Amino acid sequence: MQPLVSIIMGSTSDLPIMAKAAELLDSFEIPFEIHALSAHRTPKEVEDFAKNAHGRGVKVIIAAAGMAAHLPGVIASMTSLPVIGVPIKASLDGVDALLAIVQMPPGIPVATVGINASLNSAILAVQILSQSDQQLQTKLQSYKEDLKKKIVAANAELSHIKYKFKTN
Amino acid sequence: MQPLVSIIMGSTSDLPIMAKAAELLDSFEIPFEIHALSAHRTPKEVEDFAKNAHGRGVKVIIAAAGMAAHLPGVIASMTSLPVIGVPIKASLDGVDALLAIVQMPPGIPVATVGINASLNSAILAVQILSQSDQQLQTKLQSYKEDLKKKIVAANAELSHIKYKFKTN
Amino acid sequence: MQPLVSIIMGSTSDLPIMAKAAELLDSFEIPFEIHALSAHRTPKEVEDFAKNAHGRGVKVIIAAAGMAAHLPGVIASMTSLPVIGVPIKASLDGVDALLAIVQMPPGIPVATVGINASLNSAILAVQILSQSDQQLQTKLQSYKEDLKKKIVAANAELSHIKYKFKTN
Amino acid sequence: MQPLVSIIMGSTSDLPIMAKAAELLDSFEIPFEIHALSAHRTPKEVEDFAKNAHGRGVKVIIAAAGMAAHLPGVIASMTSLPVIGVPIKASLDGVDALLAIVQMPPGIPVATVGINASLNSAILAVQILSQSDQQLQTKLQSYKEDLKKKIVAANAELSHIKYKFKTN
Amino acid sequence: MQPLVSIIMGSTSDLPIMAKAAELLDSFEIPFEIHALSAHRTPKEVEDFAKNAHGRGVKVIIAAAGMAAHLPGVIASMTSLPVIGVPIKASLDGVDALLAIVQMPPGIPVATVGINASLNSAILAVQILSQSDQQLQTKLQSYKEDLKKKIVAANAELSHIKYKFKTN
Amino acid sequence: MQPLVSIIMGSTSDLPIMAKAAELLDSFEIPFEIHALSAHRTPKEVEDFAKNAHGRGVKVIIAAAGMAAHLPGVIASMTSLPVIGVPIKASLDGVDALLAIVQMPPGIPVATVGINASLNSAILAVQILSQSDQQLQTKLQSYKEDLKKKIVAANAELSHIKYKFKTN
Amino acid sequence: MQPLVSIIMGSTSDLPIMAKAAELLDSFEIPFEIHALSAHRTPKEVEDFAKNAHGRGVKVIIAAAGMAAHLPGVIASMTSLPVIGVPIKASLDGVDALLAIVQMPPGIPVATVGINASLNSAILAVQILSQSDQQLQTKLQSYKEDLKKKIVAANAELSHIKYKFKTN
Amino acid sequence: MQPLVSIIMGSTSDLPIMAKAAELLDSFEIPFEIHALSAHRTPKEVEDFAKNAHGRGVKVIIAAAGMAAHLPGVIASMTSLPVIGVPIKASLDGVDALLAIVQMPPGIPVATVGINASLNSAILAVQILSQSDQQLQTKLQSYKEDLKKKIVAANAELSHIKYKFKTN
Repeated sequence: MQPLVSIIMGSTSDLPIMAKAAELLDSFEIPFEIHALSAHRTPKEVEDFAKNAHGRGVKVIIAAAGMAAHLPGVIASMTSLPVIGVPIKASLDGVDALLAIVQMPPGIPVATVGINASLNSAILAVQILSQSDQQLQTKLQSYKEDLKKKIVAANAELSHIKYKFKTN
Repeated sequence: MQPLVSIIMGSTSDLPIMAKAAELLDSFEIPFEIHALSAHRTPKEVEDFAKNAHGRGVKVIIAAAGMAAHLPGVIASMTSLPVIGVPIKASLDGVDALLAIVQMPPGIPVATVGINASLNSAILAVQILSQSDQQLQTKLQSYKEDLKKKIVAANAELSHIKYKFKTN
Repeated sequence: MQPLVSIIMGSTSDLPIMAKAAELLDSFEIPFEIHALSAHRTPKEVEDFAKNAHGRGVKVIIAAAGMAAHLPGVIASMTSLPVIGVPIKASLDGVDALLAIVQMPPGIPVATVGINASLNSAILAVQILSQSDQQLQTKLQSYKEDLKKKIVAANAELSHIKYKFKTN
Repeated sequence: MQPLVSIIMGSTSDLPIMAKAAELLDSFEIPFEIHALSAHRTPKEVEDFAKNAHGRGVKVIIAAAGMAAHLPGVIASMTSLPVIGVPIKASLDGVDALLAIVQMPPGIPVATVGINASLNSAILAVQILSQSDQQLQTKLQSYKEDLKKKIVAANAELSHIKYKFKTN
Repeated sequence: MQPLVSIIMGSTSDLPIMAKAAELLDSFEIPFEIHALSAHRTPKEVEDFAKNAHGRGVKVIIAAAGMAAHLPGVIASMTSLPVIGVPIKASLDGVDALLAIVQMPPGIPVATVGINASLNSAILAVQILSQSDQQLQTKLQSYKEDLKKKIVAANAELSHIKYKFKTN
Repeated sequence: MQPLVSIIMGSTSDLPIMAKAAELLDSFEIPFEIHALSAHRTPKEVEDFAKNAHGRGVKVIIAAAGMAAHLPGVIASMTSLPVIGVPIKASLDGVDALLAIVQMPPGIPVATVGINASLNSAILAVQILSQSDQQLQTKLQSYKEDLKKKIVAANAELSHIKYKFKTN
Repeated sequence: MQPLVSIIMGSTSDLPIMAKAAELLDSFEIPFEIHALSAHRTPKEVEDFAKNAHGRGVKVIIAAAGMAAHLPGVIASMTSLPVIGVPIKASLDGVDALLAIVQMPPGIPVATVGINASLNSAILAVQILSQSDQQLQTKLQSYKEDLKKKIVAANAELSHIKYKFKTN
Repeated sequence: MQPLVSIIMGSTSDLPIMAKAAELLDSFEIPFEIHALSAHRTPKEVEDFAKNAHGRGVKVIIAAAGMAAHLPGVIASMTSLPVIGVPIKASLDGVDALLAIVQMPPGIPVATVGINASLNSAILAVQILSQSDQQLQTKLQSYKEDLKKKIVAANAELSHIKYKFKTN
């Protein structure tokens, strides 16, 4: 099945973090692919990937990288698809990756999410895809409802916890 | 005409920066609207805006704010439309706004662009809209071609500049 | 018994840290309640909480959150009760949460304490309550006396420790 | 008239910034006093001030300082009144003052507001005072209404501004 | 024997770090004392200490503290003895303590050493004392010679280590 | 004449800063070229440049860029020539550019100099070239001598300045 | 007259800042000298200076430098006199200079004062010299009294300023 | 055999990190030497090393240091050989070492690589040496090919991993 989202990471060592993005897309039944390609060590492969993604039917690219994280920006420079950047925490608490991804020059944006925020990168991809897919939007809303219910349930439990304290 | 993009900023003092986003959308002939609403001073109006945007046909929201910049995240929590966040430099070189926008909790992403990067926020909006609009995509590609031509022309001029130096 | 202080946190994972605030209030015999509500995942519940707190007799709100910590500011925007913000260390050593809580725009202050400083948030709540409660003030002073005595006792012990060194 | 709020700053050079706090208190008709006392250069005067404030009827102390800003913490260590700290931007964008004020040790909180946020320090003082003063609370709510109206009016004007763009 | 150096720390939890300062002074046979006194929890005791140190024959004060580290500055404001400040790493990698100690206002310096650099605080104290003590100066020079010898010996061993590599 | 050093910058707006590098190379009579090429807006041109530099006889590349500064790293990924990176201060005091240039992944180094340090980038290029050029090395040493003489002369003048003070 | 304090700075461009140190020493009638010597451009002259300072009767060295500020540490490594380091703000708000001066390795302390804090470097030098000079100590105390009087006078004036406000 | 590269580190505790540089040079069959010398504790030995390196046939110096990392800059000030600086992470996540190495004053560059990036320091040394050594250049290219192959192989494996997800 033709992938709609492409997850690309700078190194396979980022896979444990990016797995959450894959699982979220999977749970929304959105076809996707995963690649490990380095902006610095495999520039040719990155270029081929970026230039062909649109033609292959990909709608959104999620690119994750750490340190001097060039991968999302390099891909964004070679495609007009929206590119979501995930800063990976590999050094300096991830601040280097965050700045190297978000501070793009005028003309070439990268839609940056938080440090190691692979889940959010996938939700953002779903939001973008759901523009032209009413069914996805309905799923998104029920996903958000579930998040809310968990918090509300946790809050309900807290009302019991507090009885452990003396005066209440 | 029904706006497809909504630009919302925390204060009218952000207008000089956000004007570039409006101009870019205008040049792409994308209908848009501009609002000044504060997450902290007009929470009710923000809520009304966020909950009705989708129903009014808005496809993408661009939200700009400075300091403890809650506006993009608060809107993202009340809609399933993609929200693009623009950190405004009002204090601490914009680092406070960047972190307050990008470091969202799991479940509620904000697509963050660079500090004061209003132009990029609009280009990202166009990229998202062009998913289902072939004409926009063609415009995007010619926009990118123009960017490239400017650099290439500037480079050509540099070859003359260097003759000012002695040995070349 | 009617709670005077409401402790609200963005996630139940903050409970181990916020427990110290609860214990301090408990030791001062101040009735309190604990809630877990997320500014982003349960915005409606947060709004209900914030708007009703004053009417239910709550005098001070302690709000704790990490990362892009919007909870204290969002609550402050919907009530005129004093809101004490506790930045939780979840990423970037807590700097993101600190800035997202303390750098509020003009008009909507949050009384921010240190990173993970749940004990201090409760003491501050007591100081605010003791304005109109002479008994609380007396307790506060004896609490401070106890802190002092511990240090003085520790210092007395140090005079013995130093005899382990050769020349003294 | 007996001051209820005491504004104390490390240096008279902080007066232009702290004037906004004075004006806000003035507009709420809350009696206040202003002092310039340095934690480092007039420690005895600071001690006298801190120890006598409560006896003189002061209910809240606002303390402003820059750089290694010890004034709020030193006062907090000598009184059980709530102390609001205002970090003044004198070096390092105010980060040194912010950390030196907010990161207090367990037992001695300072209610910290944003960098140079003198207006917010005064609003917080009003919130604390209004606990036992119904009239103040009514004023606070109308103050917040005014803030909201300004934003709403500004937003209304924006709807005209956008007609300057071509396609809307 | 009359102490010439006084080591004072904000909490006995700083003792494991400050022990190195004590040991260095001990090895130089300089009489010293150790105190744990908190600028915030025992302000009166700190004042008594600072005001009497000179009269008791103390020549140099070493003050260590973490977080919003006021102790060195508060003592410096109450004595004209040189005060050496040691920022203790308790939060934010010690940056908060460093800034709260080093960024003193004009008129009241603190001689700041590195984060957790208790050994260096003691060496600096010896350097100050050795001004009027020729014997101490001789010891200092032989101490520095020892440091140098350790490095030179380590370097000599490295010449063997490198033979483990293939080509050398 | 065949250029030995290639200066490439992300934007012609960097020219005023990079002119110092050109002037230094000129004063050493080293043939060089200047290009403005953007890693993000002209990726194809950058690739052509990087892949052909070695064949055209270039020995060292100096690459300057600001913000999410990818240019030096992208070039380094496509050539085995040494690449010197100059972080340009365009935002965040240049810290974003510094981190985006220096924190390269294993395998692809960029020889980074200080923020806006264009002069040093050229001196480093000369140092690299002088390896196989005895004449350049002699020039380098006399250049360093000149730097020293300026300081020594400035110091000599200072001995007069101090007579303006009363007691000396 | 034999200088007791030596002020050494990395560049004559630091003179406007360091002049305050000279003036303070002058007002205390302490003989001093000023030098401009660069750790990097005149290493031999720095070495000569550092090794001979003690023999020439210098008691304290004040060393000021910006950026990668090595001068104070390099001098400290070549003398056993106390070295006071002044970080000069030349880039990055002076944070680079502060860290490059204060974070010395075990064995070689530099007594660091605040960024651009030349006045405090001189006061610290006086404090060190006054150890063995009762007259200096008396002057120091009257200097501190003067600082205090200025603040107290400024505070007295503030009591008039507040009458400009409506309700007081 | 005459070493072409000299690896010098501030302390033998840096050896585990710098071993990767040695191994890389070894695998390229480049003769090298390793020294541990401290800019602060063995300044004379550092000077001897720096001044004699060129005469002994060394072509490139790799200098590693942590904290207030002066070693690379001090060596660069005493030789005209290219000096590669490796910031070692010993405190503050290595930011202090990075700034103390990279922010050199005009005239004395250090070619800085990433924090703890010993492998990259050695590759940069090889790039510099390969200028006048065609054989080294060929080896460098095959080294880069190997890096690329590893990524390409890892990517090939990822295509299998993704079949673990439900919908693909």
